[in-house]
Amino acid sequence: MVILAEGQLDVFAAKTAVGLLRYCPDEVVGLIDADHAGEDPQPILGVGAGVPILDSVAACVSLNPSQLVIGVAPPGGGLPARWRGHIRQAIENGWDVVNGLHLALGSDAEFSTLAAKHGVRFQDIRHSGESFPVGSAKALGTRARRVLTVGTDCNIGKKITALEVTAALRRRGEDAVFVPTGQTGVMIAGWGVAIDAVVSDFIAGAAETMVCSKGDSGILIVEGQGSIWHPSYAGVTLGLMHGTMPEQMILTHCPARKTLRHTEIPVPRLSETIAMHESLLAPFLPAKVVGISLNCFGASDSQARRYMEEASNETGLPAIDCIRFGAELLAEAILDGGGS
Amino acid sequence: MVILAEGQLDVFAAKTAVGLLRYCPDEVVGLIDADHAGEDPQPILGVGAGVPILDSVAACVSLNPSQLVIGVAPPGGGLPARWRGHIRQAIENGWDVVNGLHLALGSDAEFSTLAAKHGVRFQDIRHSGESFPVGSAKALGTRARRVLTVGTDCNIGKKITALEVTAALRRRGEDAVFVPTGQTGVMIAGWGVAIDAVVSDFIAGAAETMVCSKGDSGILIVEGQGSIWHPSYAGVTLGLMHGTMPEQMILTHCPARKTLRHTEIPVPRLSETIAMHESLLAPFLPAKVVGISLNCFGASDSQARRYMEEASNETGLPAIDCIRFGAELLAEAILDGGGS
Repeated sequence: MVILAEGQLDVFAAKTAVGLLRYCPDEVVGLIDADHAGEDPQPILGVGAGVPILDSVAACVSLNPSQLVIGVAPPGGGLPARWRGHIRQAIENGWDVVNGLHLALGSDAEFSTLAAKHGVRFQDIRHSGESFPVGSAKALGTRARRVLTVGTDCNIGKKITALEVTAALRRRGEDAVFVPTGQTGVMIAGWGVAIDAVVSDFIAGAAETMVCSKGDSGILIVEGQGSIWHPSYAGVTLGLMHGTMPEQMILTHCPARKTLRHTEIPVPRLSETIAMHESLLAPFLPAKVVGISLNCFGASDSQARRYMEEASNETGLPAIDCIRFGAELLAEAILDGGGS
Repeated sequence: MVILAEGQLDVFAAKTAVGLLRYCPDEVVGLIDADHAGEDPQPILGVGAGVPILDSVAACVSLNPSQLVIGVAPPGGGLPARWRGHIRQAIENGWDVVNGLHLALGSDAEFSTLAAKHGVRFQDIRHSGESFPVGSAKALGTRARRVLTVGTDCNIGKKITALEVTAALRRRGEDAVFVPTGQTGVMIAGWGVAIDAVVSDFIAGAAETMVCSKGDSGILIVEGQGSIWHPSYAGVTLGLMHGTMPEQMILTHCPARKTLRHTEIPVPRLSETIAMHESLLAPFLPAKVVGISLNCFGASDSQARRYMEEASNETGLPAIDCIRFGAELLAEAILDGGGS
C-alpha cells in the first residue's frame, strides 16, 4: 500500500499513517506528501525509517502498490480538496482505495464513475453497512476480562496503547485480543467497527456487539475513542465506556499537551480524570484505572522518565511510555489488578 | 392528526403521543390503539381527556384527519410489525405520515410505492438530511443564557420540563426559547434536530449548531436527551451537554423509578447526579444544577409533596412536580441562580 498524507504528515494529524507504519510495516511501500518529499518518516513520525516519502501518485508507480490508503483522520472526517487529484490518479492506476473518512468514496459521483471504469474497489471503513441494537449493558455478562484505554485528551495514543498492551500480554502467554473501534484500528486488525460513524443512539450497542462477540474468555483490550473531557468527542467516549463496561482502564496522557486538542481548554489533572472515569461506571461495576500510558513524543529519555515519575507519584499507579520502554508494566498491572 | 400508539398506549412508552396531546391539543383528533379502544386517554396518559381512542384507521376516517403521526418512540426506533397495516391504510386514505422512528418510511419499498400512488408525503423527523460540523465548544461564546434539562434516568420528563419552564419564563415576560433535540420536541416546535439520529462524531456539533442559531439573546431552554447514567443513551446525553455548554441545568427525576429504565441497575442518588453533571462541565464553565423537576405520575398530591420535600432536603434546591403544581419555582430558580 501507499499512504496518502498530503500536507498533513505530522505525528498527531497523520495517525492512520503512524498506526499502519508501526503495525503493518511490511505492507507499506511509500507515503505521499509533497511537503516532506525526499525526507525520512522516522524523525517526523517516530516510525517508518526507510519508507520513501514521494510527492505524487505518479512517483509511486514504480513501487507497484495495489492500494492507496487515506492516512490522515481530520476532525469531522471530510476530504481535503488537495487530495482529490491524488485519489483520481490512484484510481486511474488501478489501485484500490482504503478510506477511513466519514465521506464514502462510493457516494462521490466522480470517484465512483472512475472506479467503475478502472475496475477499482473502495473500502470505506466508516461505512460498514452494519446496523446495531441500542446498548443494554450486556457486556457486563461476558466471561472475558474487559480492559478499555481512555485518555486525558483525544489523539494521544489510546489505540497504540491497546495494541502494545495486547502484544505484551500475548508474549506472556495470555489470550489477549485487541478490539478495534476506530478507522485505523479496523485497518490494522482487519475487523471491527469505527464507532464514531455509527448513529448516536447506537454507540453503546455497536461497542457491546463487538465486545460480546469476543467475550467468552481471555482478556479483551478495547481501543478507546476521544476523551471524556473533549468537547467534540466525549459522547462517543462515554458510549464506548457503556458498551464495553470495562473492569479495568489504562489512562493515556500526553504530558506536553497543556490544552485539549484544537481548543484552549486546559487538560484536567490525571487524578481528576481517573476519578471521573471510575465514577461514571460506578453504578454498573467497580471499574478501576490500573495504569498510566504516557505519550512523551519529542521528549528526551530523561524527560520521559521524569514525566513517568510525576504521573506515578500523582496517581499511585504504574506509569510508562510504552513506545519507548515497552508495555510490560501495564500488562502486569492488568494481571495484578484483578477487576470486578 | 391521528396518533398511532397501537399496543403501546402507556405514559412512558407513548411519549410522542403524550407530548402532542399536551402541547398541540387542538391538532389531535384521535388515537389508534385496539387495546384501549373506547377508553379515555386521561387516566392512561394523564392528558388528552375527551380525545377518542379507536381501533383502526378505518374507524378514524370520519374524524377527517390529514396526518397519521407515529406516537411511540420504542428503544432503537424500529417499526413494530403490527403497525405496518395501520400505516398502509393511512396512506391509502391519502393521509401524510409523520414519523419519528430511526427507520425512514421513504426508504421502505412498500410504503414509498404506495405513497407515490396516493400522493402522500412522509415527514421522517429523524432524517433531516442536514450535515453538521464536529463540535467545537462554541456555544460558550453565545450571549444567550443556556439552560439544559438533564435526568437521573431517561424517559422521565426532560422535554416536558423544558417546555413548561419555557412557558413559565415567557409568562414572566422573558425572551425564552425552547430548543428541541428529540423527535417529539421537533414535532411540537416545528424545528430542531433529533440528535440521537446524528452520526455520533457530530452529536455535539449538531447541538451547538442549534444553540448558536438562537443564541443572540434571552434564555435558551434546551431539551435534554437520555441520562448520563443510562447505559443505552449516555453518549447522546454527554454530547448534548458539550454542544449546549449550559450555565444552568434542571434535573428531572421520577421518585417511583427505582431502576434505570429497561435495566435492573439502581437509579443513582440526586446528589451524586448533580455532582456528576457539574464535574463533567467544570473544565469549561461553572455549570450549576439550579432546580429539580419531579415526575410524580401516579402518586397522590400528598405523596407528590412528600417527594418534593425529600428532594429539596437532599439537594438544597427547589423541587417541584411542574405538571401538577406549575413550573414557576423552576423559572424563578433560573432567574435567581445566575450562571457563569
